[in-house]
This record gives sequence, structure tokens and C-alpha cells, in this order.
Amino acid sequence: MITVSIVNVTSYTGLELLRLLAQHPQFKVTSITARSAAGKRLDEVFPQLRARTYTPMVIAEEAEQTDLAFVCLPHAAAAESVVKLLERGTKVVDLSADFRLRDAALYEEWYQHTHPAPALLETAVYGLCERYRAAIEGASLVANPGCYATAALLGLLPALAMGISGHDVIIDGKSGISGAGRSLTLGTHYAEANEDVSAYSLTGHRHLAEITQELEAALAGGLPMNRPLRITFIPHLVPMTRGILATCYADLNEERASTTAEVRALYAEYYAHEPFVEIVDQPPHTKWTYGSNHCLIYPMVDTRTSRLLVISCLDNLVKGAAGQAIQNANRLSGLPETTGLPPVSVYP
Amino acid sequence: MITVSIVNVTSYTGLELLRLLAQHPQFKVTSITARSAAGKRLDEVFPQLRARTYTPMVIAEEAEQTDLAFVCLPHAAAAESVVKLLERGTKVVDLSADFRLRDAALYEEWYQHTHPAPALLETAVYGLCERYRAAIEGASLVANPGCYATAALLGLLPALAMGISGHDVIIDGKSGISGAGRSLTLGTHYAEANEDVSAYSLTGHRHLAEITQELEAALAGGLPMNRPLRITFIPHLVPMTRGILATCYADLNEERASTTAEVRALYAEYYAHEPFVEIVDQPPHTKWTYGSNHCLIYPMVDTRTSRLLVISCLDNLVKGAAGQAIQNANRLSGLPETTGLPPVSVYP
Amino acid sequence: MITVSIVNVTSYTGLELLRLLAQHPQFKVTSITARSAAGKRLDEVFPQLRARTYTPMVIAEEAEQTDLAFVCLPHAAAAESVVKLLERGTKVVDLSADFRLRDAALYEEWYQHTHPAPALLETAVYGLCERYRAAIEGASLVANPGCYATAALLGLLPALAMGISGHDVIIDGKSGISGAGRSLTLGTHYAEANEDVSAYSLTGHRHLAEITQELEAALAGGLPMNRPLRITFIPHLVPMTRGILATCYADLNEERASTTAEVRALYAEYYAHEPFVEIVDQPPHTKWTYGSNHCLIYPMVDTRTSRLLVISCLDNLVKGAAGQAIQNANRLSGLPETTGLPPVSVYP
Amino acid sequence: MITVSIVNVTSYTGLELLRLLAQHPQFKVTSITARSAAGKRLDEVFPQLRARTYTPMVIAEEAEQTDLAFVCLPHAAAAESVVKLLERGTKVVDLSADFRLRDAALYEEWYQHTHPAPALLETAVYGLCERYRAAIEGASLVANPGCYATAALLGLLPALAMGISGHDVIIDGKSGISGAGRSLTLGTHYAEANEDVSAYSLTGHRHLAEITQELEAALAGGLPMNRPLRITFIPHLVPMTRGILATCYADLNEERASTTAEVRALYAEYYAHEPFVEIVDQPPHTKWTYGSNHCLIYPMVDTRTSRLLVISCLDNLVKGAAGQAIQNANRLSGLPETTGLPPVSVYP
Repeated sequence: MITVSIVNVTSYTGLELLRLLAQHPQFKVTSITARSAAGKRLDEVFPQLRARTYTPMVIAEEAEQTDLAFVCLPHAAAAESVVKLLERGTKVVDLSADFRLRDAALYEEWYQHTHPAPALLETAVYGLCERYRAAIEGASLVANPGCYATAALLGLLPALAMGISGHDVIIDGKSGISGAGRSLTLGTHYAEANEDVSAYSLTGHRHLAEITQELEAALAGGLPMNRPLRITFIPHLVPMTRGILATCYADLNEERASTTAEVRALYAEYYAHEPFVEIVDQPPHTKWTYGSNHCLIYPMVDTRTSRLLVISCLDNLVKGAAGQAIQNANRLSGLPETTGLPPVSVYP
Repeated sequence: MITVSIVNVTSYTGLELLRLLAQHPQFKVTSITARSAAGKRLDEVFPQLRARTYTPMVIAEEAEQTDLAFVCLPHAAAAESVVKLLERGTKVVDLSADFRLRDAALYEEWYQHTHPAPALLETAVYGLCERYRAAIEGASLVANPGCYATAALLGLLPALAMGISGHDVIIDGKSGISGAGRSLTLGTHYAEANEDVSAYSLTGHRHLAEITQELEAALAGGLPMNRPLRITFIPHLVPMTRGILATCYADLNEERASTTAEVRALYAEYYAHEPFVEIVDQPPHTKWTYGSNHCLIYPMVDTRTSRLLVISCLDNLVKGAAGQAIQNANRLSGLPETTGLPPVSVYP
Repeated sequence: MITVSIVNVTSYTGLELLRLLAQHPQFKVTSITARSAAGKRLDEVFPQLRARTYTPMVIAEEAEQTDLAFVCLPHAAAAESVVKLLERGTKVVDLSADFRLRDAALYEEWYQHTHPAPALLETAVYGLCERYRAAIEGASLVANPGCYATAALLGLLPALAMGISGHDVIIDGKSGISGAGRSLTLGTHYAEANEDVSAYSLTGHRHLAEITQELEAALAGGLPMNRPLRITFIPHLVPMTRGILATCYADLNEERASTTAEVRALYAEYYAHEPFVEIVDQPPHTKWTYGSNHCLIYPMVDTRTSRLLVISCLDNLVKGAAGQAIQNANRLSGLPETTGLPPVSVYP
Repeated sequence: MITVSIVNVTSYTGLELLRLLAQHPQFKVTSITARSAAGKRLDEVFPQLRARTYTPMVIAEEAEQTDLAFVCLPHAAAAESVVKLLERGTKVVDLSADFRLRDAALYEEWYQHTHPAPALLETAVYGLCERYRAAIEGASLVANPGCYATAALLGLLPALAMGISGHDVIIDGKSGISGAGRSLTLGTHYAEANEDVSAYSLTGHRHLAEITQELEAALAGGLPMNRPLRITFIPHLVPMTRGILATCYADLNEERASTTAEVRALYAEYYAHEPFVEIVDQPPHTKWTYGSNHCLIYPMVDTRTSRLLVISCLDNLVKGAAGQAIQNANRLSGLPETTGLPPVSVYP
């Protein structure tokens, strides 16, 4: 067994790790922390975990020594925790944004905070197995991608890497409300959020930074980068607990592919060996991914306008957070990537 | 008092007309029809109307003579009803799509049906008061716009009429599920639609035809029409009963306006005298329009990409259907457009 | 016109008063207060009210002189405000619990607070028009009933006043989440409350005190009170914004009525002249009352067990709060009780 | 491996069996049927299962030979299928109501249908492991209990078997909408069911028959049965996909237990060795059981009225259907009851 700790277990991603790891055959959670709940028994804080797998675990203030750690702290706090964990030889999957951007200056611009551990940026690997599988295998620190970023990148990487699209990209994201976390705000108060849709972060959602970084990297490996990408990303909150759907619009490079069938064939080829990415033949529903680690992608050509249209969806707490973290941890630990992850979503 | 009939009262738009007209000081509903419920008392079919304003009205198969009629039939059936109503001198607000498109061939292409009354297309007026107020005033037949079309057009008309945007337009629509009507389908079955978001009609939603017609007309009145508009419109279903939010992306014509402040000033000018359109200074929520006839619009410049971004929202059953129909009927009848329409939305 | 003020306008009941009063032909809101938002324009705090009826009203710290005031403060704070308003000759509808219980000791027991103005308890009238219409007409202070209490009392008063039921009463209440107010709590955080049902306040919800007081008073006017009522009231939170449904179970007094038809006839007689109470002939839905001031009641006999079963529902923010407050204010002001209240609910 | 078939896989219980069995280490689904979808690939009908565990299974009209079968047909049709399966030596867990009632006359009364296989009623075992574990072990046909019945029985069995309660019992049930199945009805149409609560089946929900049968049987084993039970059961539909909460009210036998602590201790003792029943120390939430096979029970004394109050909740599709069926199948097959069932619920 490989021992693992969950740092800041009281976040929704921490809770989701608990759920998923309860069925993992190789990882054993031996340490859980949360400053606000330190000293309490897990089932006091989360009665839904009463008398189950994890009882009578006690939440600690600091993580004990484990082989691997999942860090679910907010940015900046996460980096400080990661430094300590790495120093004691623990491999880390960090679910915060602290090690996603390779450039500390960019981090400072987007997160309004001097990076707490810029030296680690070079060794950290962006934890999208579908892109950086080999690097993750040998890494000690994996930066788990953001939820929107995962949906958008899996939807658009083939387009940019294979030259199917041009440089103009629009990502219209729709997210369930658990994506906003467990902190109380008026915008996530039930009576305000129910029966409502709205756009937010219009002047720049932070996930745009990592989306841009990774799409540009993909482009560099593909077509000549004659001009920078022009990416607009607008997230929206929709009244449901889980799920992200990214509707992506891009100019089509008709020399590479001009019909839906051609585009779909390229996408299918790109993801031919991916266990968690599916190219579907009808517009996917977020509900089809509820509770599972799958990302469903529907690419097509809008023939009236010769635009490339890609719809991508996933569960923001699983493939968009805890599930992907376990996928990364599996890879880090030399296990098959699918180990312990649920094969079927919860439906309806 | 002006007598009005509601043809096919058992649709959600028919029901919403009943709700709104119950408070109208000048219109009196004297005739209601519905083939499936003919002969029944209104409160047998809709217990929520029991012993209220409309009891004991009986649903008829055919409308009686009234000054004005609201036709809530599906397309094709609507046109047949409209012909009869006009012949007997009744003014008509048709809530179907039958008289929205000026070109019968276009209608046939989109609706897969030969137009039942092409001769009327010339006299029908597209019922967007904000655009065709004068023509509506003298009309006998008003074609009430589609719900998505209303949101998209009110959001984009200033951009195209005033030359703020170029020719590339993307409309990402999100609608509550009442927009799919009262007919039973698996997609609108509660357990399937709840906790789910999905895109639909990807090969072309019918509202695209009227959006294109009206944006091109606006363009013709504004900038030189050197090339056709290139419009992509993708609708999505979100798990709520009411509300539409349209997120519109377009290229910015920086010679006309290059900052959010400039764009907003032009929009404010364009809608300066509109009672039901508001230019808001923060991203609007569909909930802010719940049950009211208002359309809230938030235009801005995405400075990273020099794109124009316009967010527009409304209640699909009010400004997107029954409320706008009453606004049109008010205008048709020489009443102030706001007569009888609720000034404040239902919140939360 | 009668001038009115809303004290603590930023509560959901305050907001709902704004919505309903916008259509009231006789009441004019001339003063609004809220400590937390004092000095701000109403539409800054509630953008959904932008450029409508109430703009550009400014929220004050203290109410200005008006003919009538609606007090939406929490208990204890409400009483202090009421005292001041009455001193300056303003009639008051208090939406808090401060003047609902006639016995100051009982208030202290349930609200853990010495009553701030016990002298007023004698003159305050419990604001259920269906029960105390005449007293309300001559009052200066009306205590608007609680939302659960309104649903339960309207459902059970005929049973106890007319001797249809015995002394054993169980009330199982189900409420939408707006009933919990606008304060942020984990239990009303969207991701926690969505897709969830739970019971709460199991050791005694405060509305039980007023339900008991009023049912015992009804009993006193009816059957001999040979033993005290034995009332259990268990409230539940259900994932919707508005609506309360009370399912009431009581022993049937078969000498008075032994069939559903007989019970229904007595109920219909009891409420024969009530504009806002309907005896329906099928189980009512909370949605049938959404946004309206109606209470729908379905009484029946469970023939297997000879139990009386009464289902009662209403919109907790309208008949359960702001709408009933206006009904009381109409009565206080000598206007017809229905003045300005919406005749039809919002459906679907 | 033990081969299993799912008869009528296109029901929600069939789908949930697919989800849960995908992680079962001993059961292998080798045959799936559904009349309406016969001949189609599973992933054509349910795209959420695309390219996963079960693809490319084809839905058949008739089940192939397997060791065990789960029958998810409607009543009457189920019995016919069960007869055939038993004849060929297949053990059966029947999820319909056909073999739950021991008395064919009672079945005919409640289901308006002559029982298709009354001879089997004697050998069928009511599939509540917590009550009939030993009998299930040796059975060939297990009748899986109804969803409401499971929640009510687990909540009330200790009370009646241990003499904690008297004969008066009220069960107020609240269910998510998936309980109504996959057939389209106006009542389960999203726009009608959303933001709504209502009671239904007021003249007698069919689960009342099995609840009565089993509570009376429990009583027979406990206290002297001096008079018949007097059970009222009223189900309600609440706007969520999954979950049942049963609020049970009964007279307290104070000689047996008079405080919450005493009652809770007896309940804890009764369920001391149950893997799927938890006595919780705060009012449980249906969300705590989402996707898991647990039933959470909160018993207490309402001290004001000396009533016993028991709140019981579970996921209607898991412990209320497919999960319990697997629990039964595990027991039938000599496996530990918990085999393959998820240890932790999906939260939030």
C-alpha cells in the first residue's frame, strides 16, 4: 500500500478525494488535515462519512509523513505546504494554481501575489496526463490543472496541435456551483443561485492564464506560431452542483480538415489511447460524466460559417479536480492511470 | 375595454398571457381556445387558476370574435388561424414563427413546410418594438420574435446598427427548460434535465434565421454591407424553469469605439428611451428579470483580444414571449407600451 | 395616497414588499431603511430594481415619517423599532415574531430574550385576516404571522374551531430555502442545499408557539377544551426557492364529519368569503401559489385510519410574509384586502 | 465469476444496477434486455456508457442463461419473467412489487391484477437483509422492497419489534423525482416539477401494503398484538433527482423507553451489526446517502407530546432499489453483503 495524506480535507476537492480514495486498491489515506477543524473526528465534521471507511480518523493541523500528498489549499498557502512536503521526500499532487504557470511573473500578475517558491516552477509538471504523461511519471510535484482549463484544453489541444484551427479562440464555460468552493458568498447562497444563470470574471478568469500557456505550447509543437493566440474565455455559473461544459469556437483551418467527419477522425486519432477522453457522436451532457473521471468531447464544423466548434464536458470535482489528481498520483506511482477510478457515472 | 382571445391557451405562453393579462387595465380576455382541452373549464385544466380572475371560463375549440387575438399555436397551425382571425377584422399578435421571416423560401428551408399564407408576409411586422415601433403601431399582424432572437437582437442591434462590431458574430445561448414547451420529451423529463447542461440544435436552431434577417437589416441601415454576416448561434439547456442569457462575441470596430466606456455610452444612447431595455454596469443575472418584461444588457470590450462582448438576458416567457406580445398589443392598440406589465421582477 | 416605509428593506421580505407594492394603487413607498446598506442607492444594492419604479431611492438608517410602516427586522430589534414608530403615530405591520405571542413569558421562553415592549402585547393583533379581521381593522399594530404558522393555521383552524378534529395534531412542514433568509450559512450554501431534503429544529421550531396559541384559541371558541392540544410540528428544508407545504394529520371527530365530502363542505363553508383561501379538490402544489397571496387547502379523511388529513400550501414570501403584510395593511387602512395583490401565480 | 442478467435495463433501476455492478468483483453482467431497445448497442441508448465497461453489449429481447437475474420490469410483467427464470435454474432478485406481498388477494386489491404466479409467493423472501437475512441466504427468489417501504421499515422496525411505540403510526415520505421512473408524465416534466412540492397517492400508495405487512409481522414477534396497527402513509414529490426522507410519527410506549437517549440506545442495539444502517446523532440529510447503499436513521422523543419521532433517509435508487438488490444478490450468492457496494456517498 502507498500511504497518502490530504491537506485541507474540508474543501470540496478534499472531500471528493476521500470519496474516490475509499475505493482505491493501492492508496491508503493515513493523514488528513484542516486548520479550521483540527482535532475533530472526520465524522463529526462530515456526518455522511460516519462509521464508514475513514472512521475514526482525526483531522490534524499538520500532515504526517506519507508517500504521497494531495494538497487542497488555496493558492499561496498551497505552495508553502508543498515546499515542506517535498523536503521530507513526499511526492505531491497540488490541486491549487501555484505550480501551473511556468512563469513566476505571470503568476504574480494573475494571482496578485509574489510566488512563494519560484525555484520549484521548473520541476513542477502540469498534470494533464493526456499531454504530459511521460514527464509526470518521473516527477515529484504535479500541478493539477484547473477545472475549466481541463475542459477547455482537452477540447482544444487536438485542434491546435494538429493545426485544425486558426488563432482565434473563444471558450464559453458553464459550471456547476460546487466549482465556487465551500466558502459562503451571496452568489452561492441557494435562493440567489437557484433559477439563475450569469457570467462572471469578465475581465479575466485566472484559468485563462493556464489555458493560454498550454494552448500556445501545443501550437508551438504543431503549426508555425506566426501570431499569438487570441483567446477569450467567459465562465458562467449555472444552477447545478457539479459539471462543466465548455463550448469552444475557433476558426477552421480548412486545409487540414473541412468537414465534421474529418475533424472527428483527427480528434479520435489524437485521443485513441486515452482511457478518460471520449469523442462522442452527439452533443454531450454534463450529467453523463457525473461522479466519473471522463471528459466527453464533441467536435464539429459549423458549415454555415466554417467555424470549428468543440463541446467538451466533465465533472468539475472529478476530472476537473480530485479524479484527475488521482489519475496523476497513479501515474506518479507507476500504477495504471485508471486504478481506483469509477468506470461509470452516476445517472440520472 | 379591448376584448382579447388567446388561441391555444394550454401552452406555456398561453398560460403566461393569462397571468399577465389578469392585471391589464384595458385588455379583457373573453375567449380562450385549446383543441386538447375544449369544453373543459379553465380551472379544471389549471387548478392554479381556480376561483380567480378567469373562472369559470370554458375553453373553446374556436376563438370567438374579439378586438385582438394572441395566437400561441405551433408554426403552420398558427398561420391558418391567423388568416381566419384577420379576415374577421381581429388584430393579431402571433407568437409562432410563421410570420417572422420575410422570405417564404427561407421559411420553407428552416421549417420544412410550405408557407401557408405567404401573401401576409409583406404586411406582417416583426414585433420588436425597440426596432419597429412605428410599423407596429399601424399593423394588423405582428410576428412576435423568438425568445433567443429577442435576447440576441437586443444585445447586438446597437453593435451592428452603429458600426461598433464587424461581421463575425457568435451567440452562445443558455435557456431555462420552459423554453422547450409543455410537450413531454425525455430531454425535459425532470430526472434527465436536472443537474445537467448540454448544447443542442448544433446544425442550426431555427431562431438563427430571424436573428440573421434582423441583424443584416440593421447592418444595411448602418455600415456599408461589404460582406455578409457570419453568425454562429449555439443554444444550451440549463436546469432552471425560466430565463435566457445570451453571451455574444463579435469583432470590435475600434474606429467606432475602443473601450468599454465608449461602447456602453453608445448602447445607452441607442436604448435611451426604451422602457424595457436596461444597460447594466455589472454582468446581469437571468433571475433579475424573472417574471418581468425587461431585457438587461451588459456590453464590454475584452481588452486582451479587442473583442466586443455583449451579455443580454431576459425571461423567455415574458420579454421572450407573452410579455413582449402584450407590449406589441399595447402598441397595436395605441396604449403606452408598458401598460399592465409588471414593473419589478420576482426575486429571489 | 398612503405613504409607507419599509424598515430593513434588504431582507427577502423587504424585497418582496418592494415587488408587490410597486403595483399597489394606494400605498406609496417613501422611505426605506437598512443599517448595512445605509446611504446606498436601492439599485446599487439590488441591480434588479435598476431604473425602475423605485430609482433613485436612497436607503436610510432611520425611517422617515410615513402613514404606515412594514418592519422586517429580526426579533427584538423589531420591537424597538415598532415602539418608536407607534410613538410618532405610524401604524405598523411587524413581520417579526415580536408581537405574535400574547404572553411575554412565553416569548422569553421561545426567543431567549426578555420582551422589549411587553406593554404593547395587549394591543397588538395577530395578523391573520381570516381570523381577526375586525380587530385588525381598528388596530395600530399588527403582528404578521410566521410563514409555517400561516400555512398550518389556515389548514387547521376550521378543524379545531368546528370540532372536526380531536386534540392530537401533527404538522409536517416542507419549506423552500428562501424561508431561511438572506444570511449566509452552510445549510443554505447552494452545493449543500441542492439535491437534499432534511428535517430541522426538531426540539421545537419557534412557530410552534404561535401555532399552539392560535389553535388553542380556536378550540376555546369551539368544542369544550377538556384537554390541551398535543401538537408536534416538524419543519423540513426542500431544494426550491419559494413555497411551503404543510401536511397536517389529526384525529377525526366522526360525530362532526366522517367523510371527505363532509369535511370538505365544512371547510368550504368556513372559508366561503375568503379571497385568498381556496379549498381545492386535488392535492395542491406549492407552484400553484408561486408569487401570489393564495393559500390552497385540501382536507380529506384517511378512511383506513379515520384520520383527518389536511394539506395546505402557500408562497412563504407572499401569503407567508410580504403579501399577508399588505393584506393586513389594506385592512388597517380601510382598503379592500385584495388591493394591489397579484390575482394569478407565476407558472410554471 | 457469477454471471448476471438485467431484465429491462432501460429503467432507472436497470441503469443503476449497471453503474454499481461495474465495480463488483464477483458479478459479471453478461445479458441485458429491454423490449423497447432490443437489438441496439447499450451505448447507443445510453451514451454515458460509451466505450466503457459494458460496451459493446447489445440489448436483447430475452435474457440469456445466467446464474442470477435482476428483474426490473413493471409489476405483472415481472412475475411472468421470474417464472421463466426460475424454471431454468436462475436465482432471481425481483425489483418489482410482484412478490412482496405474501397474500395474493391483497396483491389483487392493491395492484388491480390477478397475481400471475401465486404459487411462488410462499417461497419468495422479502428482501430486507436487515430483517430476513437467513431466509434470503437459502432462497431462489427475493422480492426487493419498495423504496419508501425500505426507508419506513428500517426506521420503524426497531420501534415495533422492541415495543418502543404503540399502534398509531404516521409516515410522511418525501421522494426525489427519479422515484417516478423514466416514463414521461406531465408531473415529471421539468418545468412542472421544478420549484414544486406536492403530496400524491392520498387514497393509498401501494407501498403502504408492504409496510403494513412487515410492521405487523414485526409486531407479532414483539409485543402482544392486541389491536391492529393504524398506519397513515403520505408520499410527497420534492424537486431533486434522488433521495427519500421518511419522517415517522408514532405513539411512544414510555414503559419501554421515555427519553431520546433510551430510544437511541435501543435503535443502536437493534442495528449494531448492520453495515448499511447508521443511527446518526443529528437529523440526517438525503444528500449524505447520494449514490451509496446506506440508510441513516435518527430516532428521538418529542418531549412536549411524548411522541416517538424517527427520521430515516436513503438513496431511492440504491438502498431503495439497485443497491439493495445487489446486497440481496450478495447474500443469495454467499458473498459478504457489502461486496462491490460504494463505501462513501457522492457529496456534495
